[in-house]
Amino acid sequence: MDERTRLRLDVSYDGTDFSGWAPQPDRRTVAGVLVEALDLLLGAGSATGLTVAGRTDAGVHATGQVCHVDLPTALWREREGSLLRRLSRLLPGDVRVRAVTEVPAQFDARFSATFRRYEYRVTDAPYGAEPLRRHEILAWPRPLDLDALNAAAAGLVGEHDFAAYCRRKENATTLREVTRLDWRRDPDGVLVATVQADAFCQAMVRSLVGAMLAVGEGRRPADWPAGLLRRRERSGEVTVAPAHGLTLVAVGYPDDPAEYARRAELTRRLRVPAEA
Amino acid sequence: MDERTRLRLDVSYDGTDFSGWAPQPDRRTVAGVLVEALDLLLGAGSATGLTVAGRTDAGVHATGQVCHVDLPTALWREREGSLLRRLSRLLPGDVRVRAVTEVPAQFDARFSATFRRYEYRVTDAPYGAEPLRRHEILAWPRPLDLDALNAAAAGLVGEHDFAAYCRRKENATTLREVTRLDWRRDPDGVLVATVQADAFCQAMVRSLVGAMLAVGEGRRPADWPAGLLRRRERSGEVTVAPAHGLTLVAVGYPDDPAEYARRAELTRRLRVPAEA
Repeated sequence: MDERTRLRLDVSYDGTDFSGWAPQPDRRTVAGVLVEALDLLLGAGSATGLTVAGRTDAGVHATGQVCHVDLPTALWREREGSLLRRLSRLLPGDVRVRAVTEVPAQFDARFSATFRRYEYRVTDAPYGAEPLRRHEILAWPRPLDLDALNAAAAGLVGEHDFAAYCRRKENATTLREVTRLDWRRDPDGVLVATVQADAFCQAMVRSLVGAMLAVGEGRRPADWPAGLLRRRERSGEVTVAPAHGLTLVAVGYPDDPAEYARRAELTRRLRVPAEA
Repeated sequence: MDERTRLRLDVSYDGTDFSGWAPQPDRRTVAGVLVEALDLLLGAGSATGLTVAGRTDAGVHATGQVCHVDLPTALWREREGSLLRRLSRLLPGDVRVRAVTEVPAQFDARFSATFRRYEYRVTDAPYGAEPLRRHEILAWPRPLDLDALNAAAAGLVGEHDFAAYCRRKENATTLREVTRLDWRRDPDGVLVATVQADAFCQAMVRSLVGAMLAVGEGRRPADWPAGLLRRRERSGEVTVAPAHGLTLVAVGYPDDPAEYARRAELTRRLRVPAEA
């Protein structure tokens, strides 16, 4: 077999018109559009093994998505200088490949990742969301209290079994470590939640946000979201916040490439993650 | 006739799906959509004399548009507390009324204005515009030099006859005072031009931007845009930059309401402005 080179692709997309990342028959997905462009540009089947850090759901956006793909080394050497611009011309405007970087074969976009960071945007302005931002901001019809949101958030930080906030999957642990969870108001008054964890189960960020919003509007006490962590299964009391407020903003990897393989091995041993 | 109260409306819109501000038969316009909502909410013809600060062209956005409208005082008193929320529920998501404020009858959204401020966004990133910002950022296919853009801008500040940058209208002066014109790179690397003047003629901002971009990419010398100010009519050498990069961000009015009438009288005497 030909020698192959692994490439890291940094990807942004407006999730509005995508049925999420993962390829599905007869659906427009980010991976589907990306593979189509790579096949057209490099020859069908030349790029193999597309693997993503965060399998975002339908309607979720990304400014910092990361994936990897393998290319025959000879083909990569030939196209190295032009691939980024050619991809941009070929891809639709709602998905961009921002960088293409050669990485060691041990780099795994999914398993080498040390954290995923998401932001969720919601406005409680009486007039709703700014028109130019309406595809990425949830309009909340009642006032939200920043201190209450942050009190709710504080109880969720740390390593917990997030079963109450996960769609249960066979043989998959729902143990996750949330390393950051806080709310701020940006200069336009929009409430922005930053949520960072080693990994997320499906719809976990939106479930956490849904629970915190119930506190923010005064409908639940501040310790309610953390209290749900005692449950062993998904809670029907938690409303999953709409997808369009959510954006994957960053994925972290070890600074030292020598750690790529070790981290991947560790992740595989601990779980088969089912990231949101 | 009934006593009437003048209201200032602060308006935002995503210009993508609008044929500009001004009402046109069989076209979707911002004023058209706004009047329709006001008529539905207050009774047909109750709100009269809709007057806007900046008659934006098709595709141009606004975060700081200002207009005024007159309402029977009794009706205003009755609806004062609920008008903003009701308008938000009725209006489509691509236009928002951010504030409704009672103003003196001497306030004229168009003639009392002391300045209009626009921003123009363009990216020279090799991969193009960020997907979530693609409706408000022009993707430029070649590198742009920030210093060259600012050198070009410097020569355009001040009071000049902008005939070269205006669509000529009968009996309308093309004398304008540009009080601010500069470029910066925002944290995402997007080039943002801020252009402020007492008023603009039609497509003036986009013509100025088009001329400056020719300098920014090294195709014209830095003094070329200022040199065109000597022309007495529109220059065919200037490419009008696309509408979707342009946003009206602010309109200024005298701090002292006593100045509203004086300013309006002054503006009317000097010109019938045809703002961009």
